[in-house]
Amino acid sequence: MTRIVYLDGQYLAETEAKVSIFDRGFLMADGVYEVTSVLGGKLVDFPGHIVRLQRSLDALEIRNPLSSDDWLEVHRQLIVRNNIDEGMIYLQVTRGNPGDRDFAFPPADLPPTVVLFTQAKPGLANNPAAKTGLRIISIPDIRWGRRDIKTVQLLYPSMGKMMAKKAGVDDAWFVEEELVTEGTSNNAYIVKGNRIITRALSNDILHGITRAAVLRFAAEAQMEVEERSFSIEEAQAADEAFVTSASTFVMPVVEIDGAKIGAGTPGPIVARLREIYLEEMLKAAL
Amino acid sequence: MTRIVYLDGQYLAETEAKVSIFDRGFLMADGVYEVTSVLGGKLVDFPGHIVRLQRSLDALEIRNPLSSDDWLEVHRQLIVRNNIDEGMIYLQVTRGNPGDRDFAFPPADLPPTVVLFTQAKPGLANNPAAKTGLRIISIPDIRWGRRDIKTVQLLYPSMGKMMAKKAGVDDAWFVEEELVTEGTSNNAYIVKGNRIITRALSNDILHGITRAAVLRFAAEAQMEVEERSFSIEEAQAADEAFVTSASTFVMPVVEIDGAKIGAGTPGPIVARLREIYLEEMLKAAL
Repeated sequence: MTRIVYLDGQYLAETEAKVSIFDRGFLMADGVYEVTSVLGGKLVDFPGHIVRLQRSLDALEIRNPLSSDDWLEVHRQLIVRNNIDEGMIYLQVTRGNPGDRDFAFPPADLPPTVVLFTQAKPGLANNPAAKTGLRIISIPDIRWGRRDIKTVQLLYPSMGKMMAKKAGVDDAWFVEEELVTEGTSNNAYIVKGNRIITRALSNDILHGITRAAVLRFAAEAQMEVEERSFSIEEAQAADEAFVTSASTFVMPVVEIDGAKIGAGTPGPIVARLREIYLEEMLKAAL
Repeated sequence: MTRIVYLDGQYLAETEAKVSIFDRGFLMADGVYEVTSVLGGKLVDFPGHIVRLQRSLDALEIRNPLSSDDWLEVHRQLIVRNNIDEGMIYLQVTRGNPGDRDFAFPPADLPPTVVLFTQAKPGLANNPAAKTGLRIISIPDIRWGRRDIKTVQLLYPSMGKMMAKKAGVDDAWFVEEELVTEGTSNNAYIVKGNRIITRALSNDILHGITRAAVLRFAAEAQMEVEERSFSIEEAQAADEAFVTSASTFVMPVVEIDGAKIGAGTPGPIVARLREIYLEEMLKAAL
């Protein structure tokens, strides 16, 4: 089936959706994005994504081209037109097409480019990886210094996924000055006893929407939450480890740089967090 | 006049040149570029740019879609079709359009996307800025760790140009651990007596094609060349300062963070280097 995608106010067949070679997104990675999951045809934590989109746009001084209601309407239209039950909706806003290339920003009244498309992922909530857990490696974090802005500068995260693939594992965690920052496309956590440990928010990591929800649910479930950095060595000695992202939710990590975490199988705290997250988010889905 | 641009084997009107929203360049900044100057209708240091393009592509494991002869032919066609006497030719290669979004690289046999376009810049060689010199500010270098690869991840350099603009000056130099790395789109130099000082090549800076030529000409003209890092304080106390790039050639810097360099006007060494560079490069232009 040909997907119907959204581009600058129009719903188009995916093969028809094209942007100018002069688009700032194409020439200068001058754009931001969000990915929202769909479960049972409904959007998971949609308001969180729209708030973060605004934050990213503000950081780059790109104006938000749609109202929150309009964003919701486009997301819903794409769900309906593509008959998405489980999957994701990808959203990208760039600084637009000035018609030529220049390092200087174009005039602020240039219309941003808006792209949205769906990805059907049947079985998203019952991802078998949640039962087996992920094996990961650590790699140096050489990304730029504003990882809190969700820009399309994804070359190194993409290279990181390939390094993991070549190493025969599932993903990679970035390490800077001996401490874990986050995963290639997710936030990173360890569990010691009843305590969940994850790096504090700063410019060094993405301010995960799923992270915020999971930490809230963890506290509500009487788990302790400690926001601080940890090393690979500490992670390898932890009872459990996991990652969170909008499309994988809560996903156990069972091996880091060849060392098994705990028994080498997903542990009970992570399983419980995943269960709570999916349950609560399904209730609140729009 | 509508420019004729090149896209994936075709010569098109600039307004017709579009890439898929799924192009890796648009979604993930997964691409590299080169800019070659045109003087008198001829290409300046073309072989240098093609060698560096290959280096960048190799670093990202993107295959080079054209032979050196074919690259030259496309450049020349664009010069002729757009009647370029003085200006630039921009070239970009991305990992192509896999038809969907995935962090993992697409199969290696996916055709890369190839885009080239011209920018007419009458008076490029007689840029009045070469007479007045540039005023610059320093800003923190928060770019990623592989600045030697000429990727399209230009968001921060672009933000740097805007910071300079807001500060009422011409450009910015990046500073990391108290030492200058390079300019937003050029390599940075200072002059002390007969000695030219510029940061040594590493992953921290772009391996400038113009840099290589200028250092060669400087040595031939009996100037001393010292490849080492320097601070903003040392630069402010230098006799002269300058930047080099493929489109500005050799350009004097007369003010750094509010402090005048030397007399606050372009000095004789920089003027001489610019003269030699343009003379030699015009002779060798293709």
